[in-house]
Amino acid sequence: MIVAVCLNPALDVTYDVPGFEVGAAQRVRHVRRRAGGKGVNVASVLHAQGTSALTAGPIGGAVGAEIVDDLRERDVPAELTHIAGSSRQTVTVVSDDDATVLNEPGPVLTEAEWSAFTKSFARLMRGTAVVTMSGSLPGGVPTSAYAELTRIAHDHGASVIVDCEGEPLVRALHAAPDIVKINEHEAAATTLVETATGSDSLESVLAAAEELHSLGAREVVITRGAAGLAAHTVQSRFAATAAGTVAGNPTGAGDAFTAGLADAVAAGLSWPDRLRRAAGWAAGAVARPTAGDLDPTIAADHESRTIIRELSS
Amino acid sequence: MIVAVCLNPALDVTYDVPGFEVGAAQRVRHVRRRAGGKGVNVASVLHAQGTSALTAGPIGGAVGAEIVDDLRERDVPAELTHIAGSSRQTVTVVSDDDATVLNEPGPVLTEAEWSAFTKSFARLMRGTAVVTMSGSLPGGVPTSAYAELTRIAHDHGASVIVDCEGEPLVRALHAAPDIVKINEHEAAATTLVETATGSDSLESVLAAAEELHSLGAREVVITRGAAGLAAHTVQSRFAATAAGTVAGNPTGAGDAFTAGLADAVAAGLSWPDRLRRAAGWAAGAVARPTAGDLDPTIAADHESRTIIRELSS
Repeated sequence: MIVAVCLNPALDVTYDVPGFEVGAAQRVRHVRRRAGGKGVNVASVLHAQGTSALTAGPIGGAVGAEIVDDLRERDVPAELTHIAGSSRQTVTVVSDDDATVLNEPGPVLTEAEWSAFTKSFARLMRGTAVVTMSGSLPGGVPTSAYAELTRIAHDHGASVIVDCEGEPLVRALHAAPDIVKINEHEAAATTLVETATGSDSLESVLAAAEELHSLGAREVVITRGAAGLAAHTVQSRFAATAAGTVAGNPTGAGDAFTAGLADAVAAGLSWPDRLRRAAGWAAGAVARPTAGDLDPTIAADHESRTIIRELSS
Repeated sequence: MIVAVCLNPALDVTYDVPGFEVGAAQRVRHVRRRAGGKGVNVASVLHAQGTSALTAGPIGGAVGAEIVDDLRERDVPAELTHIAGSSRQTVTVVSDDDATVLNEPGPVLTEAEWSAFTKSFARLMRGTAVVTMSGSLPGGVPTSAYAELTRIAHDHGASVIVDCEGEPLVRALHAAPDIVKINEHEAAATTLVETATGSDSLESVLAAAEELHSLGAREVVITRGAAGLAAHTVQSRFAATAAGTVAGNPTGAGDAFTAGLADAVAAGLSWPDRLRRAAGWAAGAVARPTAGDLDPTIAADHESRTIIRELSS
């Protein structure tokens, strides 16, 4: 079983508004409403691929109720802790070539609510092989949240994959998570190692990975979009180049990558196979317009064709 | 009892986003969520002023459930017909000096749902003195909707105030509603009589009112924003100048005007007193940031100070 932690789930509302402009009243041509948030997307992708997984997080208010309903309708298992505050909505206005995103702040948890969540999380750890921890923290939750959850997971023998940035990531490193998986921009922001794109960028990304390792991460994977990825593992260092470009929507591709990685870790695969699966699932997600979905044929094709190079140390 | 028909109720979501721009991801600083739609605003204002009123309309989906919850929390009586489609949300992004409004299309009613609503509406007519019919129609509802409801109301002896524009207004005129209350722009669009602002505008507004009367409206009130109003009644013609400007938010002022008019009609007041009350409540609504609210002190003050002139015919 894989548990995908989602501390700030959202109702993702997408509006199609051709010619969208500021300061006018405009008709929305098409509306999509769907449960989202990075952890929810991870669990959705795992569920779509037939892997036993659930999402866990706090939920509240009318928006929270709609998130619960959507997860139920899509059969995505969830273990949610009810809170007094209201879960957030995001509104994305898609117009011609632009996407305008409005992110609500989300709820503020009380200490008692955070404590109730950690207790529920600890109960979930029985029989859990891998835990993913993705995304930003809602108000009221300590910045040490992922560190705290990592320690609970480790007490129960579960492996932890962390995908976040900034202070919550720095604090999580103190609890020695098994894998930190972030993109090159997040890596640069957290480590202050320049990860400039260009011919030297693989070296600088590997330097950032090594820095994250020295700060506490057991193993590190840094994604580089179309440029592939770099991994710093206990045995070796790896790089991969994408098997080809996929046209579509990159939103949620990082979450599909995390899902693929968690799936491969739970299945006991080697590092090259883990990276191939993660890269393949990310490609499959790009092919679908909605975050949390993936095209299984493209995912399998890219998984089989992604080439992993082991780097000399 | 006053029934405020709201065929396309909405959940009005307001976001404060300083420096809002197209094509970026932005944090929402503050979120307000509230039941709206013109008929809901009319009922809210009447309720706030202590007048016995309820709103009636179709409602559905998760957004509909939140509208119901908000009305319940604010104690605004409602008689809602449940439908399979989902009620709409509007998103208003307030930034510095701009307001950007995103209007969802709203649900599409089935014939059976519209028929269920009209039956429920007919039952409500027992004991109802005045009905207001405000705003646009959702999908699936015939453009003759307000005409149909006007006939049902008249069969039960209730007076009807219609506040809408375009084809639904033209069709409503066929059923001889007691009062048509619209603004000068809506009047111009419906009658094709120019209502240019300027020295001649009172005459052109009165011409538009006479045109609406000749098309079927028993009496007509046309609001002119800060320029006051003009009324064409069975006995005479009236004009009013606003008692003074009120700083604030004009959204919902038209609905407060309709509420004041309905309240005065139900109370059996004379035309000058009806117009004073309606103008006063509109002024009271401008003083409050949220549509459906009003400042009762400003409303009473403006009601007492609005001067009505009877025009020679």
